[in-house]
Amino acid sequence: MASTVEGGDTALLPEFPRGPLDAYRARASFSWKELALFTEGEGMLRFKKTIFSALENDPLFARSPGADLSLEKYRELNFLRCKRIFEYDFLSVEDMFKSPLKVPALIQCLGMYDSSLAAKYLLHSLVFGSAVYSSGSERHLTYIQKIFRMEIRDPKTLLPMPGVMVGDIGKKLGQNGLDNGFAMFHKVRVPRQSLLNRMGDVTPEGTYVSPFKDVRQRFGASLGSLSSGRVSIVSLAILNLKLAVAIALRFSATRRQFGPTEEEEIPVLEYPMQQWRLLPYLAAVYALDHFSKSLFLDLVELQRGLASGDRSARQAELGREIHALASASKPLASWTTQQGIQECREACGGHGYLAMNRLGVLRDDNDPNCTYEGDNNILLQQTSNYLLGLLAHQVHDGACFRSPLKSVDFLDAYPGILDQKFEVSSVADCLDSAVALAAYKWLVCYLLRETYQKLNQEKRSGSSDFEARNKCQVSHGRPLALAFVELTVVQRFHEHVHQPSVPPSLRAVLGRLSALYALWSLSRHAALLYRGGYFSGEQAGEVLESAVLALCSQLKDDAVALVDVIAPPDFVLDSPIGRADGELYKNLWGAVLQESKVLERASWWPEFSVNKPVIGSLKSKL
Amino acid sequence: MASTVEGGDTALLPEFPRGPLDAYRARASFSWKELALFTEGEGMLRFKKTIFSALENDPLFARSPGADLSLEKYRELNFLRCKRIFEYDFLSVEDMFKSPLKVPALIQCLGMYDSSLAAKYLLHSLVFGSAVYSSGSERHLTYIQKIFRMEIRDPKTLLPMPGVMVGDIGKKLGQNGLDNGFAMFHKVRVPRQSLLNRMGDVTPEGTYVSPFKDVRQRFGASLGSLSSGRVSIVSLAILNLKLAVAIALRFSATRRQFGPTEEEEIPVLEYPMQQWRLLPYLAAVYALDHFSKSLFLDLVELQRGLASGDRSARQAELGREIHALASASKPLASWTTQQGIQECREACGGHGYLAMNRLGVLRDDNDPNCTYEGDNNILLQQTSNYLLGLLAHQVHDGACFRSPLKSVDFLDAYPGILDQKFEVSSVADCLDSAVALAAYKWLVCYLLRETYQKLNQEKRSGSSDFEARNKCQVSHGRPLALAFVELTVVQRFHEHVHQPSVPPSLRAVLGRLSALYALWSLSRHAALLYRGGYFSGEQAGEVLESAVLALCSQLKDDAVALVDVIAPPDFVLDSPIGRADGELYKNLWGAVLQESKVLERASWWPEFSVNKPVIGSLKSKL
Repeated sequence: MASTVEGGDTALLPEFPRGPLDAYRARASFSWKELALFTEGEGMLRFKKTIFSALENDPLFARSPGADLSLEKYRELNFLRCKRIFEYDFLSVEDMFKSPLKVPALIQCLGMYDSSLAAKYLLHSLVFGSAVYSSGSERHLTYIQKIFRMEIRDPKTLLPMPGVMVGDIGKKLGQNGLDNGFAMFHKVRVPRQSLLNRMGDVTPEGTYVSPFKDVRQRFGASLGSLSSGRVSIVSLAILNLKLAVAIALRFSATRRQFGPTEEEEIPVLEYPMQQWRLLPYLAAVYALDHFSKSLFLDLVELQRGLASGDRSARQAELGREIHALASASKPLASWTTQQGIQECREACGGHGYLAMNRLGVLRDDNDPNCTYEGDNNILLQQTSNYLLGLLAHQVHDGACFRSPLKSVDFLDAYPGILDQKFEVSSVADCLDSAVALAAYKWLVCYLLRETYQKLNQEKRSGSSDFEARNKCQVSHGRPLALAFVELTVVQRFHEHVHQPSVPPSLRAVLGRLSALYALWSLSRHAALLYRGGYFSGEQAGEVLESAVLALCSQLKDDAVALVDVIAPPDFVLDSPIGRADGELYKNLWGAVLQESKVLERASWWPEFSVNKPVIGSLKSKL
Repeated sequence: MASTVEGGDTALLPEFPRGPLDAYRARASFSWKELALFTEGEGMLRFKKTIFSALENDPLFARSPGADLSLEKYRELNFLRCKRIFEYDFLSVEDMFKSPLKVPALIQCLGMYDSSLAAKYLLHSLVFGSAVYSSGSERHLTYIQKIFRMEIRDPKTLLPMPGVMVGDIGKKLGQNGLDNGFAMFHKVRVPRQSLLNRMGDVTPEGTYVSPFKDVRQRFGASLGSLSSGRVSIVSLAILNLKLAVAIALRFSATRRQFGPTEEEEIPVLEYPMQQWRLLPYLAAVYALDHFSKSLFLDLVELQRGLASGDRSARQAELGREIHALASASKPLASWTTQQGIQECREACGGHGYLAMNRLGVLRDDNDPNCTYEGDNNILLQQTSNYLLGLLAHQVHDGACFRSPLKSVDFLDAYPGILDQKFEVSSVADCLDSAVALAAYKWLVCYLLRETYQKLNQEKRSGSSDFEARNKCQVSHGRPLALAFVELTVVQRFHEHVHQPSVPPSLRAVLGRLSALYALWSLSRHAALLYRGGYFSGEQAGEVLESAVLALCSQLKDDAVALVDVIAPPDFVLDSPIGRADGELYKNLWGAVLQESKVLERASWWPEFSVNKPVIGSLKSKL
């Protein structure tokens, strides 16, 4: 397959322009085209290229360097672009069923162009549309058609219906192409038939009825709709991180500062500090992106079960497991991205602070991912509650730890796992994600036992259930939920990069990415590993730290090629310091000169020239 | 003194309006007026009030809710406001000499109104002006006058001189009231006399001369100018953190969500999670603000020595010590603020994401504090190098650890300190900053020894000095520099709150703030404390974690009163959810309705109503 693309179809993965990035590209241990093909598959690469090319060739999507867009103008543009996406209809319903991963791919492509566009399209078609579709019944099908034709109030005047007051809540930190608003209802009656009645309905007599006999099963089914939003957010977050690391790493490979001798300045990527700041986030992109796709496929399985009326115990368990994974992976992805963008911004120095280089927009647009569909810290409680529920079930009823996606099955061996210790004594033995996997399993078992004990201790000393949970969340439930989801991400990526179908030439670099993400994430829990006795002595912590740095050093020559796999075309990336040709200063200078009135005096210059301040002239007024 | 203010002069510290914050204000363990007076002193409170009142009463400083200011308009406004500050002349040169702390106070007051204003004023008068003053000589005095009269090119046309090209670098992530630019010189000759020649000069024959005989002393003297920028940034960062915690804590005390029963919802500040997220940053404000003032006074001492021509060894040592402290406290303050604002933003949920509530602007305006005057990570190397230099001097020459400000004197006992262990076994014994102080001293000694050994080991295995330092910085030099400056901050605040002049009624709350900041900062180093053997067993880590949570819980009823001490008047704070009356929803609703066109359809609504998209109509073009 690789040869097809390498040879026959250079249009799908064209060569990059020659330039200052050549040196790193030449040093890469693998072919970026081969990795792109292995990661995405040819069909997906074509799909993405179709979308990116359509945007690049359509004047409505032209970038406007230097424009100081007003809020209203930006919203209008975003609306027109969203409409245009409907007209392109990149993904038909049939395609969606055949290749479900094209859904997150479409979201990522639109989001890479502009988060507001992805959010508007996603909210309109997938969230609004699919909520009506999956929670409604036959009588609501008419709305689905209207939704896809963009018909949201009174179709002629767009004025709200009588008794309804709608308004705009104003400017936000980001995603300002989206006009969030408020709605107030004054003596408005909504007909009973408008209720989305798949999970529960009200009869003409006013009685509540539900097709689910078991409350627990109805709850499990409802969780499915909640999960889909959170799983989408994982995708939205990661696309931002992809853009940020692409910008920061191409910058770092071309920006030179200081060096071992007076004559020569070296790219800042050669400094261990810069590697340590950025490469773990590059590894995180690969690990989290893989996880996000696999979780999306799990969700598709859940939704197919719902659609086909599957009311089995397995289906309900699947709903709960996906809910637990989505509730913790949304915080993990959005926070990793938040911290990663911030690190990228700082690692690019003043260049990162220039708006045109886009890191600020990425940070602002990513920020709500930490908040909507549930505040990250609150959501983590869902996951720790899920694990605590399983343990209680095991303690009281002797149940096995078993879940449809097997994410908790290892807990069955928890007493044995808790006896394990970290026994790696050399950095060389630590350079594999298997080391981190074993440590993570111990950590989850340890935190689960500690949380359970702490919770019971609080209750015994008189706390209500509400109080006890709140008292345990910071020190126990929160790290438990994070460690559990990190373990799952590490586990899935570890399996992915060690499967036999991985081309031999890609095994080394993928293995390093997997190990780096795993060990770097794990290192943030080092204090707990010591505290619980998994680590002891000076060496354990040293080995972990040295392994992270060694992997960074091993990956630095591959960094540019790894970025070439995940970065969208320059037009979409839209960052002078992140362009594929690596002509840092030329691109920056070009972009600066394109800004409006860059060499002119400000329009108010005579004010400056004529009316000089008289120092202290207003002092008497104080 | 307290009685004067409490009784006679309610105008200086007026009562807050009654409202939803009353409950917390009534529960506070101390009088906020007494603390304000103890922290600032009456003269300083008056000075700040004068500035705030002048801004509030001057229409030029009117806030413009809902305005979507263009870049050019914002810059013009900021320029006019800066000019007006010159006209108010809040701080005469005599006052500045008499009460040097009024300098950072003025910066904080202007910065609380708008960071761009503080930056513009600071750059113009203090950075530009004082660089010319302190690095120039008699022949440059004429420029000083021009600077204060705002005369920056050709005074009539404001066009650059021939051969000089100046331009604008465009929009930044924040501080856009400031117009940063670039300058290019084409065959421009600058007369020799323009050289700022206090530290070194060039004779008409082209020979370099300097009044300093010792290169090391000239370097120490030059460091003084570098330090003043960094010390100012500490102040700039902290003012942003003050505003952010004020907004987030008043919000948390009035925003209710869920509760122990169905009937009652409780303020989110009652949740241990919310306390843990926010209260450490409140403690950080108090500790860092005290440190920043004390460091500013140290800097004043240094500059007075420079101005009086002091070329003693002590003066040079003082320059180096302040350089080391400023190079690490600028990173500490700017990062603490960066992380604190982000936590405040998230802790306010969607309300924090609304631009009008100001947390986004604070984050954007604070961000360059991490970058300018030296990237934070790079700057930390200055501090670790300083400490390594002292150790090398001690090892080779048997010198004592002594510095003018005594920040390193404890290192003299380092072999003994390294033998110490953490021996606190109950949370109750841990609730004092003395516990953290002892741990920090051990940590700095440990990291200093480890860094020194690692550096020598790298050199022995063939690394050049350049390589060796780069290899040690991530794992050793960086944490060493941070631990050292955190220790200094903790030490100074610990001494401040334990001095005999602290009014008895304030001792408990100040002691808790000091302990919380110290233990919370220390807890981020828990893995190192275990690794080096200062901590052992499960209990040490547990006690530390529990102590932080216990202090949060003890401080939550004082949080609103502590915010009342640091928050500026509502007009300056400029955040509907952070207003002193606590009328969260009323203020928010009022602010939303003040935005422009809030209830109107967008001007482009007919486009929405008439031209519906035809799904897939452009598909053939793909």
